[in-house]
Amino acid sequence: MAVYTRVEENDLTSFLQTYDIGEATSFSGITEGVENSNYRLNTTKGAYILTLYEKRVRVEDLPFFIGLMAHMAKAGITCPEPVADKNGNVLKELNGKAAAIVTFLEGTWNATPSPARCRAAGQTLAQMHLAGQDFSLRRKNALDADAWRPLLNSAGRDDINTLRAGLYEEAGERLDSILADWPENLPSGVLHADLFPDNVLFVGNDVTGVIDFYFACNDMLAYDLAIMLNAWCFEPDGSFNITKSRQLIDGYQSVRPLNEEEIASIPVLCRGSAMRFFLTRLYDWIHTPPDAQVRPHDPMAYWKRLNFHHQVKTPEGYGVR
Amino acid sequence: MAVYTRVEENDLTSFLQTYDIGEATSFSGITEGVENSNYRLNTTKGAYILTLYEKRVRVEDLPFFIGLMAHMAKAGITCPEPVADKNGNVLKELNGKAAAIVTFLEGTWNATPSPARCRAAGQTLAQMHLAGQDFSLRRKNALDADAWRPLLNSAGRDDINTLRAGLYEEAGERLDSILADWPENLPSGVLHADLFPDNVLFVGNDVTGVIDFYFACNDMLAYDLAIMLNAWCFEPDGSFNITKSRQLIDGYQSVRPLNEEEIASIPVLCRGSAMRFFLTRLYDWIHTPPDAQVRPHDPMAYWKRLNFHHQVKTPEGYGVR
Repeated sequence: MAVYTRVEENDLTSFLQTYDIGEATSFSGITEGVENSNYRLNTTKGAYILTLYEKRVRVEDLPFFIGLMAHMAKAGITCPEPVADKNGNVLKELNGKAAAIVTFLEGTWNATPSPARCRAAGQTLAQMHLAGQDFSLRRKNALDADAWRPLLNSAGRDDINTLRAGLYEEAGERLDSILADWPENLPSGVLHADLFPDNVLFVGNDVTGVIDFYFACNDMLAYDLAIMLNAWCFEPDGSFNITKSRQLIDGYQSVRPLNEEEIASIPVLCRGSAMRFFLTRLYDWIHTPPDAQVRPHDPMAYWKRLNFHHQVKTPEGYGVR
Repeated sequence: MAVYTRVEENDLTSFLQTYDIGEATSFSGITEGVENSNYRLNTTKGAYILTLYEKRVRVEDLPFFIGLMAHMAKAGITCPEPVADKNGNVLKELNGKAAAIVTFLEGTWNATPSPARCRAAGQTLAQMHLAGQDFSLRRKNALDADAWRPLLNSAGRDDINTLRAGLYEEAGERLDSILADWPENLPSGVLHADLFPDNVLFVGNDVTGVIDFYFACNDMLAYDLAIMLNAWCFEPDGSFNITKSRQLIDGYQSVRPLNEEEIASIPVLCRGSAMRFFLTRLYDWIHTPPDAQVRPHDPMAYWKRLNFHHQVKTPEGYGVR
């Protein structure tokens, strides 16, 4: 479900006249991306995505997100490239919403990527981390470690414990232990911060697109890798696939080698990133009406990941060599 | 909102291997069509739509719908053409749902079409009526005049009257008067039965696609024209645009002239088709939970149309010459 704002053909025609990308030949709302309204737009000159930014994205963050996509594209990362209008503007307004046109990227994705794709995606993440080093804008990670306790409390003890008795208390203990071990001086930079399999498009084993930069922010680079270890290396049955994990880390290190502190921090970064997605899913789970058409993700899938990580003692448990 | 059934890349890859249309290069759920799950599919050989049929479409009706699209395409109507697999089958199964691949059509649509587009769409409707004459399958119109009284009663007096006091009683009177005047011996054939502006794609003033055949059925041909007069010729402020109506009817008659009885019946057919959409929208309005993400269409827009039609006495009121 991802069209909140309807765009009529008339509106589109006028809007496209401010660009130099030809006339629309087809235009459909697409279901990807729950945060914004997204349209697949073909014109006489090419294939694009039109995005209208809805209330879940803060308008003041858009220059960071759009600037980052432009920066990454320029650095050779295959990501949506913002298209400038005839006056050189990339951030525009349509039907009262902030809007942008970006290039459409080919490729498809799989919820359970192969080891070869894990490796390629790891390489791509490292390339993005290097490319981000000279990006001049900054954005605080709104979901960093400081945000987790307030998030747990705002989900609410009673509601959390309807999922399982004692879950609130157990989560609080897990959180204490993560925060006690949380690293502080790891190399930082620009994170994608949401590089799940549905945000990396492939043709065969080649990455053809990295999309959805709307959680990007500044934080510890290795935390981004830990997010991917959670999102890419667990099988649908909840088991951890260390072959995929090894490929992901190896792929990453083939482009940007991790330093010793980063490697030593992998277990706690995995626990922390699992906690972050557990908490946001928990919050959405509790706050989504039962008859809503978009079912939220099950937070317990991330609770199981947390339990896995809490029994891993060393980076070798993730296949680091 | 139109992806109820998720299709993974793995499933898609296996499915496409049963066809001879190349490999997927992109694949996105699209928001068009509330009845089924629809995906925009590009392959190395062309552009397609993949549809998975959900519970609102009866599986036993699919041979009619898909056969009709194939028949229309063969007759030169630009509509989605079902693609046969390597064994010659067009109706398949994917993820436990009936599924079909059809060709993708270019074009865009506008909720308030111009008079020139009304004319072109009228011509297209008549072409479809002629092309349908030698289609061998039949499907009863499940929403024909016999269905309206049960539909009114199942929406429920008390719920209807929450929209406006006395609406149930007024609608009953309108319905009595329509059924008393309802014609019986008009030429019949295959109707699209849902030819709203969003189901006719254009490039400029040329029709490039007629889509969504999932209400198609056998009934009186002129009733299909009346559905279009309701859907195409009212302005957003509720006023009736007789210039558009004249163009629509003229366009239709340039291909298939109406006989005298059909012309004389236009006013009551307009009242009847307005009643049909009023009633189904009323039913959906009442039965959709208030916090559902898909807001139903406002039935009162069709109540206003009904009121308009009830004061038109002759076909000249619709611009017939």
